[in-house]
Amino acid sequence: MRTARKRTGRRPGNTESRQAILTAARAKFALYGYEGASIRSIAQEAGVDTALIHHFFLSKEGLFAASIHDAIEPERMVEQVLGKRRATRGLGERLARYFMGLWEAPETRDKMRSILRSALSHDRAQKMLRDFVAVEVLGPIAGSTGKSHPEVRAALAASQLIGLALTRYIVELGPIASLDAEQVVACVAPTLQRYLVGPLPESLTEDD
Amino acid sequence: MRTARKRTGRRPGNTESRQAILTAARAKFALYGYEGASIRSIAQEAGVDTALIHHFFLSKEGLFAASIHDAIEPERMVEQVLGKRRATRGLGERLARYFMGLWEAPETRDKMRSILRSALSHDRAQKMLRDFVAVEVLGPIAGSTGKSHPEVRAALAASQLIGLALTRYIVELGPIASLDAEQVVACVAPTLQRYLVGPLPESLTEDD
Repeated sequence: MRTARKRTGRRPGNTESRQAILTAARAKFALYGYEGASIRSIAQEAGVDTALIHHFFLSKEGLFAASIHDAIEPERMVEQVLGKRRATRGLGERLARYFMGLWEAPETRDKMRSILRSALSHDRAQKMLRDFVAVEVLGPIAGSTGKSHPEVRAALAASQLIGLALTRYIVELGPIASLDAEQVVACVAPTLQRYLVGPLPESLTEDD
Repeated sequence: MRTARKRTGRRPGNTESRQAILTAARAKFALYGYEGASIRSIAQEAGVDTALIHHFFLSKEGLFAASIHDAIEPERMVEQVLGKRRATRGLGERLARYFMGLWEAPETRDKMRSILRSALSHDRAQKMLRDFVAVEVLGPIAGSTGKSHPEVRAALAASQLIGLALTRYIVELGPIASLDAEQVVACVAPTLQRYLVGPLPESLTEDD
């Protein structure tokens, strides 16, 4: 177990409590959905007082937002996908690989599943995940290339990634669920590359 | 109102009753999900006896399967997407256009939304939709071209279409929800075309 780092305004042990709350929240969100998981039941599962949850996360919304952050680590994702040289070449492949990695690694797979299931079951959670993805992950990635219509590009990439997560990890559609992760990366990377940096339909670019 | 066509073994009015049951089922599935919608409540809403539902559809599963059929019309879909000349050129575009049409037309949009929401909320409904899509829609389309790995191709196309439906019509991700339908078709058609008839990654074709 890691010792808590000393930070202003935090007692030793706060890091562990915070992590215990996130773990409990993930379990409850996965089991009962966003709406069905109560702060009280999460506190009970984590062995803390509900006041501590409010102290750390303000509200259930704050707690769900923190769960998304905890799983996806947006700064790390954006940095790794953009790469050191900020090359547009291979951008789709790096995005596909990072995203697949989140679902393939045992320590993040449950987190991703919990988030996606919560978002599918509840409008408020859906909106939070949507805004998070747009603002903190795909927005910066699509915006890094200087190409036109970064929001449309980000949304198109999101449509392929969400569909991939659903078919492979939630619905478990046979042929796509049984491929190697690297085979899936190879299949969808050209799609993401085109959405992020390729030409968009003329009717779109005429709007400029 | 259409008059019921005369068919062997069906009393006049059966067509209307059957359609009333499907309409009621759709409303209940949309409101309460697959699990939450009871045969009794559907019968009540349709103004029929529960026995008639069992007579037409056998079970709730049968009723859900009929709802999918009623919305997607798989034979019509396969025929229109393949086209009269069975040309592989434009296949992705025709698939994108038919699929978008299901969601854009007011008379099928609610049906599609009800089906997708039910499938997202319940494993059994999910499995039915999954098998339906694989066997009755995308399987025949991907299998029509003689290309290798039709099941993988169908599943990849499914991942893009489901992701598109989710982001545009359920989550309503801003930039993709506000495009014209034809612009969306133009954006995703090349993706579907590549999945259905383009080259697959070498690692996949090596398995042959």
